[in-house]
Amino acid sequence: MRAIVLLSGGLDSSVLAYHLVKALGHEVDAVSVDYRQRHRCELRAAQCIARELGIRHNVVDLSSLCGLIATSALTGGMDVPHGHYEADSMRATVVPNRNMMMVSIAGAIAASRGAKLVAVAVHAGDHAIYPDCRPVFIDRVDRALAVATEGHGDVRVVAPFVRMTKADIVRAGHELGVPFALTWSCYEGGKRHCGFCGTCVERREAFALANVPDPTEYEPIQVRRSG
Amino acid sequence: MRAIVLLSGGLDSSVLAYHLVKALGHEVDAVSVDYRQRHRCELRAAQCIARELGIRHNVVDLSSLCGLIATSALTGGMDVPHGHYEADSMRATVVPNRNMMMVSIAGAIAASRGAKLVAVAVHAGDHAIYPDCRPVFIDRVDRALAVATEGHGDVRVVAPFVRMTKADIVRAGHELGVPFALTWSCYEGGKRHCGFCGTCVERREAFALANVPDPTEYEPIQVRRSG
Repeated sequence: MRAIVLLSGGLDSSVLAYHLVKALGHEVDAVSVDYRQRHRCELRAAQCIARELGIRHNVVDLSSLCGLIATSALTGGMDVPHGHYEADSMRATVVPNRNMMMVSIAGAIAASRGAKLVAVAVHAGDHAIYPDCRPVFIDRVDRALAVATEGHGDVRVVAPFVRMTKADIVRAGHELGVPFALTWSCYEGGKRHCGFCGTCVERREAFALANVPDPTEYEPIQVRRSG
Repeated sequence: MRAIVLLSGGLDSSVLAYHLVKALGHEVDAVSVDYRQRHRCELRAAQCIARELGIRHNVVDLSSLCGLIATSALTGGMDVPHGHYEADSMRATVVPNRNMMMVSIAGAIAASRGAKLVAVAVHAGDHAIYPDCRPVFIDRVDRALAVATEGHGDVRVVAPFVRMTKADIVRAGHELGVPFALTWSCYEGGKRHCGFCGTCVERREAFALANVPDPTEYEPIQVRRSG
């Protein structure tokens, strides 16, 4: 079956791409979205992962939206919050309606290419902060896309990790041989992972909980303390 | 109440903008989407309508999608079909998943600006050809957007014309004083309305059925016959 994977270049979507290609044997195209995210290096990571898998990769430019949607810590204008994911501090990283826009765009590309699935890597750890990462959102956006493309592609949305933790995803990726070092999580978008923002903390913790070696290069602690 | 209207610059969405501002008294921002449509002059029409109404207008550039989605008669690569709207010939004008993409983008802008509504001007005449103009689509995309923005804007989708004919819309627009001559329907995107493409035929017919004078400048018939 042909599928479109929304590939940010982060850990979760990279494991999802491997899962679709290696475990399920789907014919997969990857789509990334450029919304002028501060951590745009994730787009290069997505390109590397797609190249490793030998799959087609396209970047959709949504940067004209940047001035029109609410300032988020991910698109500049405020600091990236450090620490563990918690409802209060991490609300600053919410880009409003991001997943519905991305699923809709991937749905249009899927309908055009005869792909029957749009796959998105939301997972259980996201639910508390991001309303568009919950199972109820996946269910509803799937139903909307199904009728929107009825008779014109008949595309559905799948989110195989929606009830998994990030540690579960690391374990799955380890078994699939995902080159984790090529993936990018850090919201700061520096040369190395900062190790302190919410997604870095979550990434580190997931490798530890999964008991899988973490190949990520994090900034040395002293650099952050003096900064 | 604050609302975002998806304003293409066509007749239906222009009447909708007037309806929201003049009849309902909403505080309205207009959003248009540039998807490199052949009839890009509709974007100028949208700008004129927004200026007449004194409302804010933004154009979102989705043109990077153009090479990635299926060729439609509306984005080039094939001829615009002439004649009345009928399932067979007009299928060439379907841009896959267009309304879901536009509603999602407008939803992000709404959430960012404290607007509680996204208004879209689909109507009963569209249903046979476009799956994403049916009441069932509006219902489902509304439910998806509601959960996607839950606690982050809580935006809903409305489509007040979804069960109205285009003649009903012309009548409503006439009562609201909509400057119909400023609106643009023709898919050919020439200097004047061609009068022969599906949307021109539908526009002409709607004015006639509504018994409202049609101020549209159509190409003289002999030009088309010798062309």
